[in-house]
Amino acid sequence: MNKRAIGTVPLIYPVPIVLVGAMVEGRGNFSTIGDAAIMGIRPALVCISMNRTHFTTGGIQSSNAFSINVPTTSQVSVVDYCGIVSGKTINKADLFTLFYGDGGAPMIEECPVNLDCTVEKEIQIEHRCIFIGRVVQTYVDEKFVDEGDERTVAEMPVLDPIMYALDNRYYRVGGVIGTGYNEGRQYRESSRQDG
Amino acid sequence: MNKRAIGTVPLIYPVPIVLVGAMVEGRGNFSTIGDAAIMGIRPALVCISMNRTHFTTGGIQSSNAFSINVPTTSQVSVVDYCGIVSGKTINKADLFTLFYGDGGAPMIEECPVNLDCTVEKEIQIEHRCIFIGRVVQTYVDEKFVDEGDERTVAEMPVLDPIMYALDNRYYRVGGVIGTGYNEGRQYRESSRQDG
Repeated sequence: MNKRAIGTVPLIYPVPIVLVGAMVEGRGNFSTIGDAAIMGIRPALVCISMNRTHFTTGGIQSSNAFSINVPTTSQVSVVDYCGIVSGKTINKADLFTLFYGDGGAPMIEECPVNLDCTVEKEIQIEHRCIFIGRVVQTYVDEKFVDEGDERTVAEMPVLDPIMYALDNRYYRVGGVIGTGYNEGRQYRESSRQDG
Repeated sequence: MNKRAIGTVPLIYPVPIVLVGAMVEGRGNFSTIGDAAIMGIRPALVCISMNRTHFTTGGIQSSNAFSINVPTTSQVSVVDYCGIVSGKTINKADLFTLFYGDGGAPMIEECPVNLDCTVEKEIQIEHRCIFIGRVVQTYVDEKFVDEGDERTVAEMPVLDPIMYALDNRYYRVGGVIGTGYNEGRQYRESSRQDG
């Protein structure tokens, strides 16, 4: 077998980069993370992992609410900046135009997509605080919403999100390589013919 | 504000596609999911979400172990196939070459990267089973490991992973748009000059 054991490295790649928002000490604060995922469609569940000592983490714990703001590649500088400076030393609310929904967490108007979430569960493992959130409302820039179907938003190359990997590089999305449920059906058909 | 409320849609995008493996009824089974994420580097934590009724889920619960296998774009057909057929009706162990580590879950040799994980916590929310896993070992194809530093693996365009989004398309990774911690430093410097 041509595998090398390299130790305990959580190599899931690439990961979508998001800005997590929460109210902390009366103002909106944001933290850049790559530790976020969809946990279910119906119910709409998400999961984020934060360092216990980070400024945003305390805000999520005290308010039981957070937002996930999905940025676009033109924002990569300010997004990276929000990952290297703490809200303890600068007011990150000044970096964006904020808006609020029913959940109470601050959201970033400049990001194409915003998820307004409440905390469903918190799990602490060593210095990590993992929050499972329930999406209470999803906001999308008008220009990215399909006129015919409100739940259909623009495709990836238009939304142009930021990905990150443990090689410490930010990437944009590349070309389409297939369609869900279609590639597998074709694979099944060709397997039957082979058999 | 030019935002549209579109209901509760967990729009985090794009997401990395992985094959989750577990022993079920004495054989290796695999399920394709996009609901997986890094939850921490040290300790190496991951999170996956599965449907309660799926075949793999029962295997994870009874063995307290699972694997995460990160495929590459040339595998998109069999990967999609593993997401549309159940291990109840076909033997997915026949689709791949399997290997095993200390964790006990089956891993896929054809995938460039494999995470051998044990279950740290299970959280059930409605029909979703969310497993937080601890990585007990990471395996990487020899050809993708840096000779000088075993923890340095090839960059994204070489590993060539599969991403997916709620537009039901599979994507490959695109070009580099920045470097972590560097973009933010430059942003801070330019902000200081502006001020």
